[in-house]
Amino acid sequence: MKGTWIFNNAPLITAGGAVGGKDEKNGPLAAYFDSFFADDVTQANSYEEAEGFFLSRAAQIALNKASLSSGDIDLFIAGDLMNQITSATYTAAYLNAPYLGIFSACATVCEALAMGGLAVSSGKCQKVLVGSVSHNKSAERQFRYPNEYGSQKPPTCQKTATAAGALLLADKGQGIMLESVTVGRVVDYGINDPLNMGAAMAPAAADTICKHFSQTKTSPADYDLILSGDLGKMGRELLFDLLSSQGYGPGKQRLKDCGLLLYGEQKDAFCGGSGAGCIASVLAGYLCNLLQNRVVTRILVAATGALLSPNWVKQGNTIPCISHAVSLRVGDNNA
Amino acid sequence: MKGTWIFNNAPLITAGGAVGGKDEKNGPLAAYFDSFFADDVTQANSYEEAEGFFLSRAAQIALNKASLSSGDIDLFIAGDLMNQITSATYTAAYLNAPYLGIFSACATVCEALAMGGLAVSSGKCQKVLVGSVSHNKSAERQFRYPNEYGSQKPPTCQKTATAAGALLLADKGQGIMLESVTVGRVVDYGINDPLNMGAAMAPAAADTICKHFSQTKTSPADYDLILSGDLGKMGRELLFDLLSSQGYGPGKQRLKDCGLLLYGEQKDAFCGGSGAGCIASVLAGYLCNLLQNRVVTRILVAATGALLSPNWVKQGNTIPCISHAVSLRVGDNNA
Repeated sequence: MKGTWIFNNAPLITAGGAVGGKDEKNGPLAAYFDSFFADDVTQANSYEEAEGFFLSRAAQIALNKASLSSGDIDLFIAGDLMNQITSATYTAAYLNAPYLGIFSACATVCEALAMGGLAVSSGKCQKVLVGSVSHNKSAERQFRYPNEYGSQKPPTCQKTATAAGALLLADKGQGIMLESVTVGRVVDYGINDPLNMGAAMAPAAADTICKHFSQTKTSPADYDLILSGDLGKMGRELLFDLLSSQGYGPGKQRLKDCGLLLYGEQKDAFCGGSGAGCIASVLAGYLCNLLQNRVVTRILVAATGALLSPNWVKQGNTIPCISHAVSLRVGDNNA
Repeated sequence: MKGTWIFNNAPLITAGGAVGGKDEKNGPLAAYFDSFFADDVTQANSYEEAEGFFLSRAAQIALNKASLSSGDIDLFIAGDLMNQITSATYTAAYLNAPYLGIFSACATVCEALAMGGLAVSSGKCQKVLVGSVSHNKSAERQFRYPNEYGSQKPPTCQKTATAAGALLLADKGQGIMLESVTVGRVVDYGINDPLNMGAAMAPAAADTICKHFSQTKTSPADYDLILSGDLGKMGRELLFDLLSSQGYGPGKQRLKDCGLLLYGEQKDAFCGGSGAGCIASVLAGYLCNLLQNRVVTRILVAATGALLSPNWVKQGNTIPCISHAVSLRVGDNNA
């Protein structure tokens, strides 16, 4: 069963922190965020440094909710979209905890949960903090063009969220069970347009979700919600068709996309939100809230990442993508 | 015991693959490499793509030695220095296996061993392939200046290796025991010169090595060799002094640096080799050979990474560093 790990002693998500910027504050999920920065620079010296502030604040909020200090943490696992994941490193320095840096683009938070789940379920760690972040302005100028240039965008593009999410995994306490994870493989359908990520990533999401169903012997009906993150409007349509063609048609109401949830009908979000902080903040805020309040009892979250670098695309290569999925459920907790 | 994981059921390194370029072929460790590319481009379309070829070949060699195909692998964990770790992704696509991308700069291979060791020792995986790679020409033009510019370098700088190393971790078989790992934290001594990485990274190595000794109740005398990677000449001196000042003076003969081992007295290597592929190839080739032939029976390998991005430094920030250590020993193997 290559790729899927079922945790019999399920690690628990005992706290989360979701931090957004001003556009996220104006979105439909605003009530589920813990904190907002009033502007994109947040008194930092650069957008890149500000991105580190977002993740550090999300991490601190998760710790505060669990009444822990950073010294209580056995391990911090995080990543982001910046070259050499500097925002995650900034936060690791802030926390001063053992740190593993990771990268799977917008799928980073699910990779972090997979690794953190393994660390807790194996007994090597008791408390693991995971997180990821993105910043619209630092991502745009790194991957595409600085927003200040005012360049036109096609309707297929997505808006990188200025947001961060952090989650605390623990071996005991009250929380949401991380019952299994499915680690994805690289899927490349030959898309080479970095302004059409939904199309590039949907096949990776389908590959991992189908593998998850097959290897855990579940089907879409076993989940209240199946969430991709972040495919946007077009990518979600493609994912729906791909799943249906594999015999796993989820029903349109059951399949949601975190990028669509974050910004709703905001016009300048184009096809929807994206970025490593989009799904991380939606998961740490909105989705954890739904589970804690038993609005839903079991969900599958399949984060998707486009593993391109700007150079890679300029050199004529297509965009390799990946998706990692985590299954979360409410239930009896460990003592 | 935050940061150190002792594996009672130690995962085994059952095979390794070490691939180098022409400068590595002219170095003192040439006999321990499995394969060399005749030139830096290796029939690829770019240095960046060539870097992917190096890691793919190292991975394939490790698989061949273990008589496995990529379909036998439960998990591939890898990273490199390129923005968005495209070389690791390239290799993950080649292997078509479940993939977790990681980044801790030149400490990547030890982070991969830590995570892979956890995956195997927990029973979730039976066979995990890990690796990392660097390429002198792609790294120079990304982090400093293209070599073609012919810019002058100060004597403190190090030479990024054009090399890759891959290691196969398994739950049973004949191999070298991964008995414990120590995950480091971010250490920043305020160095802001990206041409003096040895000084920036030595304190991180000292922090992790001292933590390892303390948490595993060992001392330098318990190890035949203590290897840093890659601090170079000056960094090694600093590390020696830092360890001695903490009461863990290793003796000069016991403390080696992978960057110094790789190039020996090659003049254009300045302070020594560096890069995520330097320690990875030295470990997969030379060090595994020493252990297999019982020239040494127990070694501590502390890989060091400078977690900077060029932007981060240009924006006036100092260089955050990290070190992850793995303890390897020969011994009775599992059945």
